Amino acid sequence: MNTFGRNLRVTTFGESHGKALGAVIDGCPPGIPLDETDIQALLDRRRPGTSPLSSPRQEADRVEILSGVFEGKTTGTPIAMIVRNNDAKSGDYGELRGKFRPGHADFTYQEKYGIRDHRGGGRSSGRETIGRVAAGALAMKYLSLHGITVTGRIIAVHGKTEPAAIEHEILAAKEAGDSVGGIAEIVAKGCPAGLGDPVFGKLDAGIAGAMMGIGAVKGVEIGDGFAVAGKSGSHTNDPMTKDGFASNHAGGILGGISSGQDIVVRIAVKPTPSIAKTQKTRDIHGNVVDISVGGRHDPCIVPRIIPVAEAMLALVLADCLLEMGKYKGGSR
Amino acid sequence: MNTFGRNLRVTTFGESHGKALGAVIDGCPPGIPLDETDIQALLDRRRPGTSPLSSPRQEADRVEILSGVFEGKTTGTPIAMIVRNNDAKSGDYGELRGKFRPGHADFTYQEKYGIRDHRGGGRSSGRETIGRVAAGALAMKYLSLHGITVTGRIIAVHGKTEPAAIEHEILAAKEAGDSVGGIAEIVAKGCPAGLGDPVFGKLDAGIAGAMMGIGAVKGVEIGDGFAVAGKSGSHTNDPMTKDGFASNHAGGILGGISSGQDIVVRIAVKPTPSIAKTQKTRDIHGNVVDISVGGRHDPCIVPRIIPVAEAMLALVLADCLLEMGKYKGGSR
Amino acid sequence: MNTFGRNLRVTTFGESHGKALGAVIDGCPPGIPLDETDIQALLDRRRPGTSPLSSPRQEADRVEILSGVFEGKTTGTPIAMIVRNNDAKSGDYGELRGKFRPGHADFTYQEKYGIRDHRGGGRSSGRETIGRVAAGALAMKYLSLHGITVTGRIIAVHGKTEPAAIEHEILAAKEAGDSVGGIAEIVAKGCPAGLGDPVFGKLDAGIAGAMMGIGAVKGVEIGDGFAVAGKSGSHTNDPMTKDGFASNHAGGILGGISSGQDIVVRIAVKPTPSIAKTQKTRDIHGNVVDISVGGRHDPCIVPRIIPVAEAMLALVLADCLLEMGKYKGGSR
Amino acid sequence: MNTFGRNLRVTTFGESHGKALGAVIDGCPPGIPLDETDIQALLDRRRPGTSPLSSPRQEADRVEILSGVFEGKTTGTPIAMIVRNNDAKSGDYGELRGKFRPGHADFTYQEKYGIRDHRGGGRSSGRETIGRVAAGALAMKYLSLHGITVTGRIIAVHGKTEPAAIEHEILAAKEAGDSVGGIAEIVAKGCPAGLGDPVFGKLDAGIAGAMMGIGAVKGVEIGDGFAVAGKSGSHTNDPMTKDGFASNHAGGILGGISSGQDIVVRIAVKPTPSIAKTQKTRDIHGNVVDISVGGRHDPCIVPRIIPVAEAMLALVLADCLLEMGKYKGGSR
Repeated sequence: MNTFGRNLRVTTFGESHGKALGAVIDGCPPGIPLDETDIQALLDRRRPGTSPLSSPRQEADRVEILSGVFEGKTTGTPIAMIVRNNDAKSGDYGELRGKFRPGHADFTYQEKYGIRDHRGGGRSSGRETIGRVAAGALAMKYLSLHGITVTGRIIAVHGKTEPAAIEHEILAAKEAGDSVGGIAEIVAKGCPAGLGDPVFGKLDAGIAGAMMGIGAVKGVEIGDGFAVAGKSGSHTNDPMTKDGFASNHAGGILGGISSGQDIVVRIAVKPTPSIAKTQKTRDIHGNVVDISVGGRHDPCIVPRIIPVAEAMLALVLADCLLEMGKYKGGSR
Repeated sequence: MNTFGRNLRVTTFGESHGKALGAVIDGCPPGIPLDETDIQALLDRRRPGTSPLSSPRQEADRVEILSGVFEGKTTGTPIAMIVRNNDAKSGDYGELRGKFRPGHADFTYQEKYGIRDHRGGGRSSGRETIGRVAAGALAMKYLSLHGITVTGRIIAVHGKTEPAAIEHEILAAKEAGDSVGGIAEIVAKGCPAGLGDPVFGKLDAGIAGAMMGIGAVKGVEIGDGFAVAGKSGSHTNDPMTKDGFASNHAGGILGGISSGQDIVVRIAVKPTPSIAKTQKTRDIHGNVVDISVGGRHDPCIVPRIIPVAEAMLALVLADCLLEMGKYKGGSR
Repeated sequence: MNTFGRNLRVTTFGESHGKALGAVIDGCPPGIPLDETDIQALLDRRRPGTSPLSSPRQEADRVEILSGVFEGKTTGTPIAMIVRNNDAKSGDYGELRGKFRPGHADFTYQEKYGIRDHRGGGRSSGRETIGRVAAGALAMKYLSLHGITVTGRIIAVHGKTEPAAIEHEILAAKEAGDSVGGIAEIVAKGCPAGLGDPVFGKLDAGIAGAMMGIGAVKGVEIGDGFAVAGKSGSHTNDPMTKDGFASNHAGGILGGISSGQDIVVRIAVKPTPSIAKTQKTRDIHGNVVDISVGGRHDPCIVPRIIPVAEAMLALVLADCLLEMGKYKGGSR
Repeated sequence: MNTFGRNLRVTTFGESHGKALGAVIDGCPPGIPLDETDIQALLDRRRPGTSPLSSPRQEADRVEILSGVFEGKTTGTPIAMIVRNNDAKSGDYGELRGKFRPGHADFTYQEKYGIRDHRGGGRSSGRETIGRVAAGALAMKYLSLHGITVTGRIIAVHGKTEPAAIEHEILAAKEAGDSVGGIAEIVAKGCPAGLGDPVFGKLDAGIAGAMMGIGAVKGVEIGDGFAVAGKSGSHTNDPMTKDGFASNHAGGILGGISSGQDIVVRIAVKPTPSIAKTQKTRDIHGNVVDISVGGRHDPCIVPRIIPVAEAMLALVLADCLLEMGKYKGGSR
C-alpha cells in the first residue's frame, strides 16, 4: 500500500537510513515541462536543518530524475525520482534498537511484521515524505497549467495562533525536552466544479484519507468542520446568489464534488513523539524500561508537515482532474 | 467509484426514487453463516419513520439476498442484496426539480454530469446508505467471529451533550423548520494489533476516507483528534507498562497500524441541509429564487448516521483483517 | 475478483441455480440512451434452447434495470441489472452432488473454498456469463456512439471450417454423448489509434486476460498469432504506405496500442466438459467412481461463447476509450 | 499502467536510453532472505551480448537495491531496485528519429502521446523488461520457499524444433538481415491446488494477460491450447484416479483455479521487428520512405524472452499465493 492515486499513481519507497528514498509517478500526462529544479524547490521546503525551530539533521536531499522526462518534457511514461541518504547516523539510534518509542510505530511494526529497520523509524520515519513531496511537486506543476494553486499555513500551535506566540511555544518545548502539536490549513484555489465522484470516491473522502495518511495527523476537517456540530442548517447551508455562493461553510465541496469555491482543509498535528523527557515503555523482551529519545528532532512538526500536506492535496486534485477529463474527453 | 475496499469489496447502487437499492459484496470468505435476518436487523436501525425525531417516510426496506449464500453459509462468491423502493413519492419533489437545494449535491451533480435524477437527491440521497449498511452487517458478522465489535453513540447535538438536552434541541429545530448538527463516536473493541498498512494504506487513513465519504460528515478525528493541537508530546504519547498501554491518546492506532487498544473515531455531522426555512438559491436557468425544502426530513441526522458509520468502520476493519491474513496464512 | 475494468467497471454476481444473476456497471458516462430492450437483444443471443445444436434448457432470461437510468438515459451512477433464474431444476444435479465432474471446476472450487454450490456448477456455470453479456451490451452501445463495432464468428469446429461440416460434427458429437471444441474470431472495426497503455496495460494484454477469463477458453491470439512462429520479420512486419498499413499481421495492435486497423482476436474453445459418455473421476470421499453427466448440455459451446467474447472485447475497448479520454479531455 | 499485481505489486520504470531502469516491489512479505546476487543471476540470463545468437549490445546491467531489505532480509516495505544504463549509443538511432519502424510501437506511441523518446524505442524497448526480471527474481525466491519452480524452454523457431536446426535458422536469418519467430513453453511445478479466483480473476486469465503484455508475444495457450479445437470432450477431460489426475490436458488449471498439476503455458513470439532488410514505412511528416533498421538486434528474440516469461509467470503465481493466504490465514 505504498501507491497512492487512481490516475496519477504515486509509489514511494525508502527508509530513513537506507540507501535512497524516492517515488515513481505513473499516469502523468505527456508534454508537461519538468526538470529537477521544479522538484528540488519543494523538497527544500520540507528539508530539516533550515531553522532553529526544526531538527538540525543536515540532508542535501538532492533529487535525481531517472526516467519519464525527455528533452525537458514528460513523455507519459513513469517518472522515477530518487534522493540518496547522506547524513544517516545509524549510531544515534543504537540504544533505541530494542525499545519501543512511545507514540511511534515501533511497537505496531514489530507486531505486524516481526521484523523492522529500527534505524530512525525506517519506513515510518518522516523522511518517507520525501517521495510524497517530490511527487506533489509534479502534481502542482500540472495543476498550475489549469490555474489551480495549493497553499498551506499554520493556524495554531499549542493553543496559540499568533506567530510570535507560536515561536515561543516551540522554543519552550525544545528547551523542556518536550514537543507541541498544532493545526494547519491547506487551501486550493482555482478548482473547477465537478472534481470528485459520488459515494466512495468523494473528493472530501479522498482528501481525508490523504491527510490522515500523513504521520502525526490525528484529525481532518473540511470547511466548517467540527464547528458544524454546534450550528443549525440555516447557518451552514451556503445560499446561492447570481454571483455564486454567498458563503463557503461547505469548504468548496458539496455531495463529495467540488463546487468551484476554494477548497478548505484543516488538519490536527500531534506533538512530535520523539522527546528527550523520560517516558515509560517496553523493550522487545517485554520489560518495562525508561526511554529518552535523543537525537535530532523537531519540537513541533507543524511547519514541516505543511509542504507534505500541500503535496497530498495537490496529488488528490490532480488525480480528480484527470478523472474528470476522462468524461470530458472521450465519453460523449 | 461506487466500490469500497480492497479485499472485502462492496459495490453499491440505487437511487432514492429508482426501482431498488443494493450492494454486491465480493471477496467475502466462504463458510460464514448468513441469512436475511442478519442484514435486516441493521437495516431496521437506519430506517426512517421509527421515532418522532426522524423523518416520517415509511419504508419497509426488506432486504433480499440474490446470490453468494448456499444452505445458510457464504460460498466465497459475490453476495448480491437488494432492497426495493416502495414509498417513493416523486410528486413531493416536483417543485424542486429546477432548483438547486442549498447544502445538497444538486448543483455539483448538474455541473459534473449535465444530467441528474432530481427525485429526492437520486444517488446522492441518504437512501444510498442502504447498500452500505447491508454490506456492513455482513462485515460485522465476520468481525464477530474474530471477537471484534463496533458500536456508535451520539456525543453531542447542537452543542449539547445530555440526552434530554439533545432531544430538546432536535425538536426545537424541527419546530423552527430548521436542523442541527452534532458529533458521533464510533468505537471498535477487540481488534488485534497489526491491522493497517504503512504509508498510504494506514488504518486511520482508511477510516478517515470511509467516514468523510458519508454524506453530511465534515470532520473526522482519531483518539485525541483536534485536541492534540493544544497538547505537548509528554501528554499525548501513550506510555507502555507490563499490562499494555497506560492510556489511549492515540485512539488505538500507531503509525497507521492498530495497537490492540480500542479504536476510537469521532465524526462531525452537519445539520440536515433540507430545511423548511426559506433560503436563497439558483434555479437551473441561473435565476436567484427562494426555496423551502418541504417533504419528510430528519431535523438532525446524527442518530441515523450512526449505523452507517458503524457499517463503514466494520467494512474497513474486515478489509484489514483479510489483508493481514494474507501474510499470516500464505507468506512464510 | 468479480469486477472487471478500470474505468467502466463491471461487477457480476449470481449462481446457476440461485435466485438471480446480474451485473452492476460503474463508471458509465452520463447521457447514453439505454433501455432494457438494448440489453435483452444480446441476452437473447446467448440464451440456451434456441437451436437443436444447443442445450434445451429454457430460460426466459428477462433483464430488469434497477438503477442508473433516468428518463431513458444513463446518469453516470451505477447501473444494476438482474435476470431471475426460473427454470432451475436442482434435482437434475442430485446424483452429481458428491462427484467431481471431469473438466469442470468442481474439484478446484472444493479445494479452494471447502464449500460449493454444487447445483449446475453454481458460480462456475456458464450462466455466470449473463452478467457479462448484459454489461457488454451497454459497452457496445457506448462504442457505437464512437463508430466502433464488435463482431464474432465461428472459424472452426472439431477441425472443420465449413458451416455444413461444422453442424455435422456438432450433431455427431451430441449423438455420441460427446462434445467438440473449436475456434472463434472476434473483430473490432472502427477503433481509433491510441487505445491501450504501455507495459502491463497493453491493449492485447487486456484482451488476452478478458478472453482467457471466459470459461472453456484455452488459447488466445492476436493477428497472425501462433502462425508468427513459422515466419520471418520481413513477412510479419506491416509496411506503411500513404494510405496506411499495407497489411495487418499485427491484428491492429503495435506495442500494446491500437494502430487504427481492425483488431483481430481468435480464441480456442475446449469441448464442453459435460458429456454423457462414462468417465472416471473421484467423489468427495476420495473414491474412484464412474460418472456420466446427463442433463441439458451443449455439445459444442463455440456458438454460444461468441456473444460472451464479443461482450468481453467490447468491455475492454470501452474501458480503453474512457482511459484515452482522460488525456484528451483533462490533461493539457 | 506500469504496475502489475494485486498483492505483490510491481511498478517498473525506465527507458532504453535514459539514466536508469528499475522496479519497485510493494507487498512483499517480510523475512525473505534477499541480496543483490539473487537478482543479478536472473538479470544476467536476459542480458544481451552473451551469445553469437543475440544482440552484441554490451550492458553490465548491475542491479542496486535501494530500499526494503535490512540485514539481508525483506522488511515488508517497498523494495526499489535500479539498473543504470551505460552503453546507450543514442547516435545509432539518429537517422531513425523521424521514421516509424515497422512492427514497432513508434507509430502508436506518437499517435497516443504526441511525443516520444525515440532513442532505441524508449519505454517500448526490450530493456523495459529489466524491471520485470528483477521483480520476477524476487517472486521466484518467494515461490521457492513454497516448493514452486518456474522453468521455460524453446519449443520451436521458424517452424523447427531441434536445437541444431533452431540455431541454423537463427544464424541464417541474421545473415539475411532478417529475423525469425518461435514458440516458448513455461512450466510451473509444485503449485498447490486453489491458486486463482473465479470469473475475472482466473489464474489462466492472469497468466494470459501477463504473457501477452510482453512485447512480441502474439499468442498464449494453456495445456492443450489451440489443439482443443480439433478434439472431443472425451479426449480433453482429464479423468481422476486415486493417484490424482490421469492426464493434464487442462494444463493445471480448471475453472480458473490451479488443480495441483503442472501449470503449462506456451507463447507465440513474433520475429524481431528490427531488421536490416529494406522496408517501406512513413516518416513523421507522412511521407513514404525506405527504412533499414541497423544497430544491434537479436535475429530471434525467443531465447531472451524466456527469462522474462518466467518472471511474469512467477509474479502471477506469487500474487495468487498471497491472495490464497488471505483466506487461509485470517478468515475463519
